[in-house]
Amino acid sequence: MEPKKAPGFPRVGVVLGSTSDFEAVRDAVAIFDEFGVKYDVVVISAHRTPDLLRRYALEAPGRGVAVILAAAGLSAALPGVLSAYTSLPVIGLPVKTGPLGGVDALVSMVQMPPGVPVAATGIGSAKNAALCCLRIIALVEPALWNKLEEYREKMAREGEERLSFPESLGLPGWKPSTESR
Amino acid sequence: MEPKKAPGFPRVGVVLGSTSDFEAVRDAVAIFDEFGVKYDVVVISAHRTPDLLRRYALEAPGRGVAVILAAAGLSAALPGVLSAYTSLPVIGLPVKTGPLGGVDALVSMVQMPPGVPVAATGIGSAKNAALCCLRIIALVEPALWNKLEEYREKMAREGEERLSFPESLGLPGWKPSTESR
Amino acid sequence: MEPKKAPGFPRVGVVLGSTSDFEAVRDAVAIFDEFGVKYDVVVISAHRTPDLLRRYALEAPGRGVAVILAAAGLSAALPGVLSAYTSLPVIGLPVKTGPLGGVDALVSMVQMPPGVPVAATGIGSAKNAALCCLRIIALVEPALWNKLEEYREKMAREGEERLSFPESLGLPGWKPSTESR
Amino acid sequence: MEPKKAPGFPRVGVVLGSTSDFEAVRDAVAIFDEFGVKYDVVVISAHRTPDLLRRYALEAPGRGVAVILAAAGLSAALPGVLSAYTSLPVIGLPVKTGPLGGVDALVSMVQMPPGVPVAATGIGSAKNAALCCLRIIALVEPALWNKLEEYREKMAREGEERLSFPESLGLPGWKPSTESR
Amino acid sequence: MEPKKAPGFPRVGVVLGSTSDFEAVRDAVAIFDEFGVKYDVVVISAHRTPDLLRRYALEAPGRGVAVILAAAGLSAALPGVLSAYTSLPVIGLPVKTGPLGGVDALVSMVQMPPGVPVAATGIGSAKNAALCCLRIIALVEPALWNKLEEYREKMAREGEERLSFPESLGLPGWKPSTESR
Amino acid sequence: MEPKKAPGFPRVGVVLGSTSDFEAVRDAVAIFDEFGVKYDVVVISAHRTPDLLRRYALEAPGRGVAVILAAAGLSAALPGVLSAYTSLPVIGLPVKTGPLGGVDALVSMVQMPPGVPVAATGIGSAKNAALCCLRIIALVEPALWNKLEEYREKMAREGEERLSFPESLGLPGWKPSTESR
Amino acid sequence: MEPKKAPGFPRVGVVLGSTSDFEAVRDAVAIFDEFGVKYDVVVISAHRTPDLLRRYALEAPGRGVAVILAAAGLSAALPGVLSAYTSLPVIGLPVKTGPLGGVDALVSMVQMPPGVPVAATGIGSAKNAALCCLRIIALVEPALWNKLEEYREKMAREGEERLSFPESLGLPGWKPSTESR
Amino acid sequence: MEPKKAPGFPRVGVVLGSTSDFEAVRDAVAIFDEFGVKYDVVVISAHRTPDLLRRYALEAPGRGVAVILAAAGLSAALPGVLSAYTSLPVIGLPVKTGPLGGVDALVSMVQMPPGVPVAATGIGSAKNAALCCLRIIALVEPALWNKLEEYREKMAREGEERLSFPESLGLPGWKPSTESR
Repeated sequence: MEPKKAPGFPRVGVVLGSTSDFEAVRDAVAIFDEFGVKYDVVVISAHRTPDLLRRYALEAPGRGVAVILAAAGLSAALPGVLSAYTSLPVIGLPVKTGPLGGVDALVSMVQMPPGVPVAATGIGSAKNAALCCLRIIALVEPALWNKLEEYREKMAREGEERLSFPESLGLPGWKPSTESR
Repeated sequence: MEPKKAPGFPRVGVVLGSTSDFEAVRDAVAIFDEFGVKYDVVVISAHRTPDLLRRYALEAPGRGVAVILAAAGLSAALPGVLSAYTSLPVIGLPVKTGPLGGVDALVSMVQMPPGVPVAATGIGSAKNAALCCLRIIALVEPALWNKLEEYREKMAREGEERLSFPESLGLPGWKPSTESR
Repeated sequence: MEPKKAPGFPRVGVVLGSTSDFEAVRDAVAIFDEFGVKYDVVVISAHRTPDLLRRYALEAPGRGVAVILAAAGLSAALPGVLSAYTSLPVIGLPVKTGPLGGVDALVSMVQMPPGVPVAATGIGSAKNAALCCLRIIALVEPALWNKLEEYREKMAREGEERLSFPESLGLPGWKPSTESR
Repeated sequence: MEPKKAPGFPRVGVVLGSTSDFEAVRDAVAIFDEFGVKYDVVVISAHRTPDLLRRYALEAPGRGVAVILAAAGLSAALPGVLSAYTSLPVIGLPVKTGPLGGVDALVSMVQMPPGVPVAATGIGSAKNAALCCLRIIALVEPALWNKLEEYREKMAREGEERLSFPESLGLPGWKPSTESR
Repeated sequence: MEPKKAPGFPRVGVVLGSTSDFEAVRDAVAIFDEFGVKYDVVVISAHRTPDLLRRYALEAPGRGVAVILAAAGLSAALPGVLSAYTSLPVIGLPVKTGPLGGVDALVSMVQMPPGVPVAATGIGSAKNAALCCLRIIALVEPALWNKLEEYREKMAREGEERLSFPESLGLPGWKPSTESR
Repeated sequence: MEPKKAPGFPRVGVVLGSTSDFEAVRDAVAIFDEFGVKYDVVVISAHRTPDLLRRYALEAPGRGVAVILAAAGLSAALPGVLSAYTSLPVIGLPVKTGPLGGVDALVSMVQMPPGVPVAATGIGSAKNAALCCLRIIALVEPALWNKLEEYREKMAREGEERLSFPESLGLPGWKPSTESR
Repeated sequence: MEPKKAPGFPRVGVVLGSTSDFEAVRDAVAIFDEFGVKYDVVVISAHRTPDLLRRYALEAPGRGVAVILAAAGLSAALPGVLSAYTSLPVIGLPVKTGPLGGVDALVSMVQMPPGVPVAATGIGSAKNAALCCLRIIALVEPALWNKLEEYREKMAREGEERLSFPESLGLPGWKPSTESR
Repeated sequence: MEPKKAPGFPRVGVVLGSTSDFEAVRDAVAIFDEFGVKYDVVVISAHRTPDLLRRYALEAPGRGVAVILAAAGLSAALPGVLSAYTSLPVIGLPVKTGPLGGVDALVSMVQMPPGVPVAATGIGSAKNAALCCLRIIALVEPALWNKLEEYREKMAREGEERLSFPESLGLPGWKPSTESR
């Protein structure tokens, strides 16, 4: 039952607890598209269709899913139950929803019993959840690793450009001195 | 698949997330013994043995289980997953354990998505969780109803006896005047 | 004083702490209507009209009330005081209101002293509070049990239909393979 | 039904939710003894003996109780229900107990619905709860007012003496200069 | 330095931490007007004009102030500092403002060191803070006591009228049976 | 590497975690302008451009920066990392943003390991963060000290003027009596 | 700069914020030993030795580190700063320490700005953090995948054995019926 | 009223809310001794001896106090009131005490109204509070600046030595490669 890597694979398995969670992963999907990483999306509730979830988890390795991104709000059992049914890494994305604004989802995701690992990113941090998945896949995709390194370099370049931001507001700014570079 | 009521039934199904949760339900079991209500106890993790949990839930109505008392700590998916697999009422008992002291369990239990109901008692309130179960069973067990009424009357009597407590400490107390009774 | 079951009974007793809480139980009432379960609604404050509350609780079993759904916000003493006056099961529904957004109501409802049980659903989870009541009543109403089982099956079917949701967005999805069914 | 002031009155009515709360008010009782203010103590649960609580509240004004100090832990309905049954001022003392350490009691005490006032002191602040009661009674007891003023002056004197504390540890301290006095 | 009771007295001293807190006490002022109780209002910050606050507190008893209602948001030192400068009872009203929504004000008000009592009502509960003050003043104003009792009776009557609320929505309601009255 | 004080110095170094944090420091910048204190502004993320941050910190003392005001939201590592790279005082300003509303930023800023000091003001308290910086600079700028003293006096005067606020609303107010001044 | 996989590799890079955090990862190290996965351990503070941290992160891919497990308490900048310096996946382990018991560490770890991903497990969940790392490495180590699958099967078997636990206490238990298997 | 710098000055003014807070600043005092910075210690309650606090604050600049370290627990008005009476920088140290463990003190310290700045370090972080004070004083004490730079270098060296820690446990460690230095 070891994961098979068919052509075009590996891919990310995005699992949503409800259709209303799609907005919460839109940025994640955009990241996958930007990096050219394959993914598929399913809406399966850990509570309403537990059998589907089990079958999804059991089939995932064979379909080439390398990592699961599970987004859910409220009492977010989704990533934990997925983790129970597979040995793939599961990244939890707590969705900001309901009266507790996602704190319940964060807590439900990370406070797992020993033996059933879930690692979660921040509440509503779709972009970071996606990048976690990409970094994992990059271990088996050298081209992706290079893209991620470029992405960090681009962030750094954009960060350097932000040094001009205060000037754009007419405020005194700072540029690193040549000697300190 | 409607619940069958065999002799000696109905009963409470006590489900623990781990053997270490047994201490947390000891008071509940004592209440069941005190009221002469049948129960059985299982230790099934929603995460480690999800299939067992499903089978437990599916078999429960046929075995005469009328209500499930699910005790768990941390990210307590147990009562929610049980509720997903059965139409029996599920009472959650958040166990005071781990770095968040049971707040995670309470939140995980109650913040369920619509359609999958769990009702929880206080953190570590084994006695009250048991009494919730008894009150439910009393709907089909007139003798139990009478015992519960007596229990409340006994509490009231003991409460009246507590009026003597301050005197036992040498402090001025209060007794209701005859006319106000 | 054991509960009498007149024709058309059992029923749910819905108790609101204030008229402004009605919005918070609208979904619960809709569920009762959908499942054809009788109910009545009262607005009685545990604090402003404590005597009325006591009389409501004392009369409830004789009127055929099988379970009480008590919705309240802020310091929600309502379900606890009802539980003190009756042996019927009491389901608390914390209303999302006030500066603490319902966390106060949730805590006030569940952290009851031993002997006075209240079981609460999530903040603002009217639907789940109603379903808790229905599952309890189903113990004495076989027809209701069947409806609840159908309800869960319908949720599962709708859940399976959600597998088409990603396609509707033009995203790659997943369907369980035939062999894994 | 206006409060009668018999000889030896007014007095404080101390109400505990349970006998285990007595430790939590021991400092309050000591303050009452120190200031020579009469009080009586009762243990009445808002949940277990609601009728007793109502009779206590109704009789209190006629017995000369001028202010009620209500101490309770967990979901602390006690002061609120007392406030519902009387027009006397009710001072709540949240007891530090249970898995939430008294935060539940504080929230339950203060987040009352409009029209049913409770004012609470800090969690476990028995001394301050007692002083609140004394300050209220001092409005009708000039001798008590003087004692409270002396108490504050004594605190100030003791505070001035604490200026020597650092010296007692061999550390440099500070004394107000003569001119700034 | 005992409080003098000039004609038209006693009165409530309303102290606001800032002019922006006035909205937060508008309901309190309305209650004072409704009950015909005299009051005065000042805006004095514990931090910006500490000397004014001290002088206010020192003069208050001589001016006939019987109780102080102190409303403040954020780190609400106002009631505590007032309590330090006078022996009058101080009722704190935490204002719902700022990034923590008044939780900071509640905590700052009640968690006072022993010897400096403040009793607080709920966050934003202007009405209850005012009623606390009235109940205190009623100890020396028999006419006010009667008005407060009438107020509670009126609340109860209005509560009874709310029993008709469900009917107004076309929902089945409840009325107490004649025998249980 | 000791800080050089060139003409026109000392100055405040304002560091923002992101351009979107500029709104959060606008009031701080206004204060610096009002007091005629020099400052410069940079946008450097502790995470996206860590090298820039290091160079900024290393160059700051030589450029005459006397104190750093670091504003950031979410997991606000910014002030801590700055503190790690310099011996200048670092004042943290937690920005109210994201699902936790700045509580995460406050906690991230103050809960530093021993040896790496950061002192933070309230969430969103740009004005106070700026005043903290000014008070520090005033130690080496006597003119600034005088301005700060005047600022406090002006606040006190404005506070005294607020005593007229109730009258402007037609409410009874209070003025200190001549003798108590 | 793509990660080189030398013989004996991949490996886990365990980074501790302080030597006192070693206890918190002891269970993680035990898991690595149990599964025969190579790892190395370093103690590098994000705040005290930021340069070392940068060099560690830059060298990690070339040394064969496939995933970083970063354990820290308090304001836990460690995993975030590591993530800023590398494209390797970073798993955060919040250590239960200090006055906030690890909640500060959890929040600091997950609430990262977009672009700098960290995924965290529960507070003190060393075992789960280790398993997250193993699941990631298993993507490139088929033998490890098999071990993880066996591990889950062993957990399931042990879970089944726990069905005998109630009997060992003399309590009625449950075994799945043959037909439901 | 500008601060005079007598010989041996500047110094730190350590203010404790109560004698029991001394333990909480012991590490701060040790730091001052280690760095040879003068300080004095006073115990003055913002609530019990407000006049003393005012006089302390007014005298502080003239006595050469350059920065105030104010340690307090519970509702910690101490630093805020000091800040109201002086233009010196005030560093708050929230003491871990009472039922809320110092969270109340942290919130009370930082959530100040605009115009009255307090900057606080972590709960119980005496060492960091002291270092904040030293960094401020270093602006006018070049020798102290050098010591602080050495302190950071020493921390870095000790940090490098910690790289040997894993070896001391028999675990594989890491040393930076020569080329990356």
